[in-house]
Amino acid sequence: MSTPGEVKKAISNPFGPPKEPLPLPENDEILTKNALKVFDETPNPRHKFIFQNLVRHLHAFVKETDISTEEWMATIQFLTETGQKCTSIRQEFILLSDVLGVSALVDAINNPSVAGATETSVFGPFYTEDAHDVPFGESIASEGKGDYMLVKGRVLDVQGQPVPNATIETWETDGFGFYDTQYVNREVPDCRGRLQSDKDGYYQYRAIVPVSYPIPGDGPVGKMLELVHRHNNRPAHLHVMIEAPGYHKLITAVYPEGDPYVTSDTVFGVKKSLVVKLDILESDEEIKKYGFKHGPVKVLNQDFILLTEQQAAEARSKVTEANILKDTTFF
Amino acid sequence: MSTPGEVKKAISNPFGPPKEPLPLPENDEILTKNALKVFDETPNPRHKFIFQNLVRHLHAFVKETDISTEEWMATIQFLTETGQKCTSIRQEFILLSDVLGVSALVDAINNPSVAGATETSVFGPFYTEDAHDVPFGESIASEGKGDYMLVKGRVLDVQGQPVPNATIETWETDGFGFYDTQYVNREVPDCRGRLQSDKDGYYQYRAIVPVSYPIPGDGPVGKMLELVHRHNNRPAHLHVMIEAPGYHKLITAVYPEGDPYVTSDTVFGVKKSLVVKLDILESDEEIKKYGFKHGPVKVLNQDFILLTEQQAAEARSKVTEANILKDTTFF
Repeated sequence: MSTPGEVKKAISNPFGPPKEPLPLPENDEILTKNALKVFDETPNPRHKFIFQNLVRHLHAFVKETDISTEEWMATIQFLTETGQKCTSIRQEFILLSDVLGVSALVDAINNPSVAGATETSVFGPFYTEDAHDVPFGESIASEGKGDYMLVKGRVLDVQGQPVPNATIETWETDGFGFYDTQYVNREVPDCRGRLQSDKDGYYQYRAIVPVSYPIPGDGPVGKMLELVHRHNNRPAHLHVMIEAPGYHKLITAVYPEGDPYVTSDTVFGVKKSLVVKLDILESDEEIKKYGFKHGPVKVLNQDFILLTEQQAAEARSKVTEANILKDTTFF
Repeated sequence: MSTPGEVKKAISNPFGPPKEPLPLPENDEILTKNALKVFDETPNPRHKFIFQNLVRHLHAFVKETDISTEEWMATIQFLTETGQKCTSIRQEFILLSDVLGVSALVDAINNPSVAGATETSVFGPFYTEDAHDVPFGESIASEGKGDYMLVKGRVLDVQGQPVPNATIETWETDGFGFYDTQYVNREVPDCRGRLQSDKDGYYQYRAIVPVSYPIPGDGPVGKMLELVHRHNNRPAHLHVMIEAPGYHKLITAVYPEGDPYVTSDTVFGVKKSLVVKLDILESDEEIKKYGFKHGPVKVLNQDFILLTEQQAAEARSKVTEANILKDTTFF
């Protein structure tokens, strides 16, 4: 065992007790007031605002639900397991945020609808940076991955003017409900690609008809959904992310109508304007013209309407008064 | 790449879409309503109550603070790091709950004050099950760990009757601000012990005067406290846990007065009734009588008053109406 001369005293951070001593809590109200007050010296007003709001809601949640010690401990364990399930290719906390509707709400607040512009949708965890460049009209999917789908349309601004040379990243499940990254033996990107709009804003590519699929069910979030008897499916969708100089980056997805989960997406990603109708390529002549080997071929005709950076910033600034504290970054 | 015959479709959990389709959200209010409604089929009413309350507060927090996408992502990363910092001997999520006042609030709700009974305090992360049995009057600490302290008193019920043969577990920092478990080379328990009250409820042991100490500063919670300019210290205290057949287990701690952090405990563990005055053993005769080698020796005279299981349950049942849903366990 150590003797006094051998060890140093435990080192505290440089901050001292608050200028005024806090009253010793004799009831819950004083406790909550103290838990708010200890954030008073926070140098960044935005941090202070967020932490104090968080404490207020956390304490209200605990009081209103009268959380038992055992329930609190179960919650601690749930959150711990959620963190420990995360890896470089899996984010269980985003999944938790997703199934509670928080991710969709953050998306909605940060990307308010603007008349005429394409609405946003949740980004999801399946984007990768290694997608191949795919020439106009070519395929993002290898053969045998599912039913054929032609995707075409224009990238435009809200005045209807074409946005040329926009970079379009797109990714989707194959016909079995898996992204390429979910295959253990993935060697090259598949069912994803990077395209450019042409000088008149047109884009076009061959793809797979996406299908609905379950989010991962083997972690704490999957178990939580089973506990509350919620299905864990996302309706079929095609992810699209578009960037062009001077324009606000659009992160969205389109959801073919008729999917059984389109009105109960487990991550709340679907917006009304993003539900699309698929057409069918009728003639063998057309099927060949667009580069497909055989039918049937579904068709997604979809224009994407971008906001300029300024338009997006203006829409965002109108949302709430809390923006007054948004001049600083959080971390 | 796999062909259609080689792979199976992704497997969903057994639950289907809700009986009534949810409206596709055109604004935040519909989104929040949907996020509440998907918990309607939860079989356990207590779970349903808790999850819907959680969604309500989470969504209100996001809206009121107008969380930006970047802040949301920083929060996801913070929670992930908090989970990943946890090990079998470190619980960073409990620490987070502690510094937000949530642990103290859960303790207060679950252990309401009862006139005449000793109040509870937060359990903390430093209890171990391997403490030695310490005979009446003997020491829980090895030599050289700090200044001497004599601890003595009685275990009683609220009528003032002695509780004999109660098991008293006690643990504390040494004089350098460390629990034994914080030393890498810990071989045997130190500054902790298991005692029994005698037939008249008396207990007595030798210990070390505990000192204030910082909670771990090398994880996400420590960094958060620095960000908001909060000190990370707990005032000096002695942990006590008492069990006796028929009585409600008492988990508490006592806090010697005069500590600079007694009114700003970073984990909100201090209650007014738990702040104690230390006396001093005056004479060399007394110092020897109690088994100390030399002075100075501080003295903590402290009775602990237990509730019966029934008294504790009655106090608990009065707290809130939410108890009506408490007939089921959470997980």
